[in-house]
Amino acid sequence: MSETPDKSRSHGRLSISASLKPRDLMAEARMVKGAWCARIITLFPDAFPGTLGLSLTGKALDQGLWRLETIPLRPFGEGRHRNVDDTPAGGGAGMVIRADVMARALDAASVGTPPDRARWPVVYLSPRGVPFTQAKAREWAGAEGITMICGRFEGVDQRVLDAYGVEEVSLGDFVLTGGEIAAQAMIDAAVRLIPGVLGNAASTEEESHSHGLLEHPQYTRPAVWEGREIPPVLMSGNHAEVDRWRRAEAERLTRERRPDLWAAHQARKG
Amino acid sequence: MSETPDKSRSHGRLSISASLKPRDLMAEARMVKGAWCARIITLFPDAFPGTLGLSLTGKALDQGLWRLETIPLRPFGEGRHRNVDDTPAGGGAGMVIRADVMARALDAASVGTPPDRARWPVVYLSPRGVPFTQAKAREWAGAEGITMICGRFEGVDQRVLDAYGVEEVSLGDFVLTGGEIAAQAMIDAAVRLIPGVLGNAASTEEESHSHGLLEHPQYTRPAVWEGREIPPVLMSGNHAEVDRWRRAEAERLTRERRPDLWAAHQARKG
Repeated sequence: MSETPDKSRSHGRLSISASLKPRDLMAEARMVKGAWCARIITLFPDAFPGTLGLSLTGKALDQGLWRLETIPLRPFGEGRHRNVDDTPAGGGAGMVIRADVMARALDAASVGTPPDRARWPVVYLSPRGVPFTQAKAREWAGAEGITMICGRFEGVDQRVLDAYGVEEVSLGDFVLTGGEIAAQAMIDAAVRLIPGVLGNAASTEEESHSHGLLEHPQYTRPAVWEGREIPPVLMSGNHAEVDRWRRAEAERLTRERRPDLWAAHQARKG
Repeated sequence: MSETPDKSRSHGRLSISASLKPRDLMAEARMVKGAWCARIITLFPDAFPGTLGLSLTGKALDQGLWRLETIPLRPFGEGRHRNVDDTPAGGGAGMVIRADVMARALDAASVGTPPDRARWPVVYLSPRGVPFTQAKAREWAGAEGITMICGRFEGVDQRVLDAYGVEEVSLGDFVLTGGEIAAQAMIDAAVRLIPGVLGNAASTEEESHSHGLLEHPQYTRPAVWEGREIPPVLMSGNHAEVDRWRRAEAERLTRERRPDLWAAHQARKG
């Protein structure tokens, strides 16, 4: 797919329809250049922008720092009822989204996007995927945009995932009714790393996980609450002591709550 | 806090206001008995129900199989501007939610709930917490309800988390702009385990992670798509062969994508 040299931008939200004619699709293509863009293939377009439309991500969306486009899956379905799924080959519970239906949605989603998956990842949100991490959020935030497939039912026909080079990513070791909330979590994690989205750039540097340890506990005024004091070292004004205390607390919490992270931390220190 | 013997139920969504008088709070208490209830302390009540209001979780919400109540944090703030946060003791970027403000919100959230944290967990969504898992979703679905604190900024004053026995739980090793999407993910995972929410009970049994392996790939009609066939064994009608193939594929995917799960699986087999 060739890229358009048009640099014009369009801000805000857009819903791509299955009924777009080739000329319309060319018009769409022009809009892709510019701000980071998330394209979401979903049976529930009303789920978006959802929480992403509020707070920092919502403000950034309104400012055109990123864009959100939903691609409703239903119109790409088969027959009069626009069926998108069928029973699993080999038997079993649930329904599987058809390869041909998903392929049509992926074709619509690819209009105007670079075919290089490093520049524009195509992701299926699935508990079978590799775990989503902050490193993945950084990788995606550095791309030009992303296409996400929100599953429902038992999954998506594996052939379309293979044919389109779709990356399977999991939010964690739990089962959701669909991929929509997982998509919102991952987009939130990526969008906040886009330059200009967070007001205070320092926040992305200092926070949890940046150095492989959990973050130390936090305290603020009042100095005494219900007979409980803020740890005196934090009120001492001695920055070296504060840093030492925070480091020790971060190590303690990581040891207690995340033996996996602690082991990795110890291994890095050799 | 005493429980009311009143068995009357109220369905749907409710927003608890900071201005409730004691008499109103007693009236609220009566509503807690019955359906599983999620109470969400948040600066962004508009984020709810969000995606939880759609699809299976939304249908179950409308049917009164579970309830969702938001408790806006802002009205519990200090002074004319209802400030909820202040700078971190000991310095650093970001803002920390005050202990006294959060305590008032937690007091409002506790009305009519059992003080036993096993019957009604109180959870703070934080990247510093223990990882959320399917086992945790099961545990919470078996409780009478849950109170969730959605953070923003750098965190919540540790003293209020200690004083109220708040459990810190993390959605995963990534950073979100706030806890609202994490809360939705965890509620979705818990609500779908409540009896009657999923149409097909079999789906909760067979799916990913239930047996410590990733789920096998899925296929459905058409039998041939773009020259790609469904694996012939799945079309054979030989159930034992199908089961063997699926088990082998589940093992292969787990080995490839989740060495951590695979190691745990091998250890269990001894």
